[in-house]
Amino acid sequence: MAGEDEFAVIANYFAPLAADPAARALQDDAALITGEGALVVTTDAIVEGAHFLPNDPLATVAQKALRVNLSDLAGKGARPLYYLMTLFWPEKRPAFEIGDLVDGLARDQSTYGVTLIGGDTVSTPGPLSLSITLLGRARARTPARADAKPGDDLWVTGTIGDSGLGLAALRGEKFVSEAHAFLVDRYRLPNPRNAVSALVARRANGALDVSDGLMADAAKLAEAAGVAVEIDVDAIPLSWAAEQWADAQRNFIASRAQLASFGDDYEVLFTAPPEYADEIEAEALPFAVTRIGRVFEGAGAQLTYGGVEVPATPGYVHRIGGRAGE
Amino acid sequence: MAGEDEFAVIANYFAPLAADPAARALQDDAALITGEGALVVTTDAIVEGAHFLPNDPLATVAQKALRVNLSDLAGKGARPLYYLMTLFWPEKRPAFEIGDLVDGLARDQSTYGVTLIGGDTVSTPGPLSLSITLLGRARARTPARADAKPGDDLWVTGTIGDSGLGLAALRGEKFVSEAHAFLVDRYRLPNPRNAVSALVARRANGALDVSDGLMADAAKLAEAAGVAVEIDVDAIPLSWAAEQWADAQRNFIASRAQLASFGDDYEVLFTAPPEYADEIEAEALPFAVTRIGRVFEGAGAQLTYGGVEVPATPGYVHRIGGRAGE
Repeated sequence: MAGEDEFAVIANYFAPLAADPAARALQDDAALITGEGALVVTTDAIVEGAHFLPNDPLATVAQKALRVNLSDLAGKGARPLYYLMTLFWPEKRPAFEIGDLVDGLARDQSTYGVTLIGGDTVSTPGPLSLSITLLGRARARTPARADAKPGDDLWVTGTIGDSGLGLAALRGEKFVSEAHAFLVDRYRLPNPRNAVSALVARRANGALDVSDGLMADAAKLAEAAGVAVEIDVDAIPLSWAAEQWADAQRNFIASRAQLASFGDDYEVLFTAPPEYADEIEAEALPFAVTRIGRVFEGAGAQLTYGGVEVPATPGYVHRIGGRAGE
Repeated sequence: MAGEDEFAVIANYFAPLAADPAARALQDDAALITGEGALVVTTDAIVEGAHFLPNDPLATVAQKALRVNLSDLAGKGARPLYYLMTLFWPEKRPAFEIGDLVDGLARDQSTYGVTLIGGDTVSTPGPLSLSITLLGRARARTPARADAKPGDDLWVTGTIGDSGLGLAALRGEKFVSEAHAFLVDRYRLPNPRNAVSALVARRANGALDVSDGLMADAAKLAEAAGVAVEIDVDAIPLSWAAEQWADAQRNFIASRAQLASFGDDYEVLFTAPPEYADEIEAEALPFAVTRIGRVFEGAGAQLTYGGVEVPATPGYVHRIGGRAGE
């Protein structure tokens, strides 16, 4: 019979990732999480062909699966601790390639201070898929989307639109070679902004991570909180590569609106009372935190330029299932 | 574009399952679990074609996905509380059928006192697959497989081999109609033994749930604890339907050895010091708890009949991946 048995796969590949006592060395049926304080829990899955490309390196595929979850906890002000991973492994794919996945996970465990505590590995005739559940310790506050308040400033970490341009680059859109490499890397490997989570827990009212596009996620925050959000086109932080791309487009506003519609940014978007603006700008972080707009009474997310409303580009909509009869 | 958008799917189907405040109404990026005490966490996935059949009803498919996880917590003496579900939904399947899955989950939430607190729904070109992460509150003790001690009695809940016979029935093996219905139901819908979990937490040394076959899981317990386990063929508890099937076989011992090799029992196997035998037998439970053997110094799991070692049948081995070059 082909392949390796599940227990050998666990012992050879996954057990070395599970040194924390909570994991019980992956030799029990469940993990045991002790310690004080509330836990923040999230789960996100990625599927070959939809969330990553068939020839993306397996190490970065695994890192992406972990990092999209880390980004969720960053947006909730929590400290990530443990994860469980379900691996749907294509039945024709040799099992030793799981080692490449594990290499990526090992690197990120060290970078982000998280450890594997459980999982399941199953064969599938379908595409390679990974589902990760990540648990973290809540800090004193766990800001919800719904906690945004009129009068708050709106802040975002890092830069917007790079990942969407990276996907375009992989699909054949032309960039100069340094920009191509930078943008593809941003698509393949999100940089979850966990370094901002302590600030978010301390000062944010509403918060979430940006994964479906800046405008789409700003709209979710507005809807959950029952507020209006305005984002100044000119304040949206762009990388040098995205700036080059935008400058080459015909329309200053439309190019930025498009970047704000791309998915997979994995930045943190949060609102905070204006009296904390100096403290937020002074926070020592390895990435930018930029004030891009404000929260008002009302509804919806709106782009503005020079204080005037301008059109946004619709964000990405995840579709589930076919229609009957299709 | 086909299908329903992910947010409509969450609002229409999953939000009604998520009434607990920990879920934040599924409108945030993460759940927040408060309260005192250690948490026991497990994850298990099921894939169409491997763990259930393409024409199994969706309600029981969802219940099976939840119940295999509930069974893990029963074996750890924990009280189940919350689950997160990743649904890999085939892209050609109409989204409204998710309602059937949800009906099954709603029934089991009520039966087992658990509630949905998060998840992810993604489209796949592959088979319908579900991954569930279940969290429960630990009781005073969380018995590990490794905690079995020489001198302990070995106990098992319920009956052994029904689910394997149910799968055989679905694949065409002939049974009288009442037996067919009973066995197929046992295959489609495990009955996780959560009612035994308080007893397990109180008195068990080693414990785990039986999912890969009684002998295979007894061997895992023996290996983890560094002990030998003997199981008396004649003591293995059988349902009336399995008893009928076994009686029709030519060989008393071989038929029972085969039942002890089938997977998907989802019973709880545990060891306990002999001084608790009366208490264990007196525990008021809606299913049997049967003493089937003992723990000794040594290694491995062995079947015996009249005190003499008899041959076991190898259990099911999950295979992961193909070999290179296949």
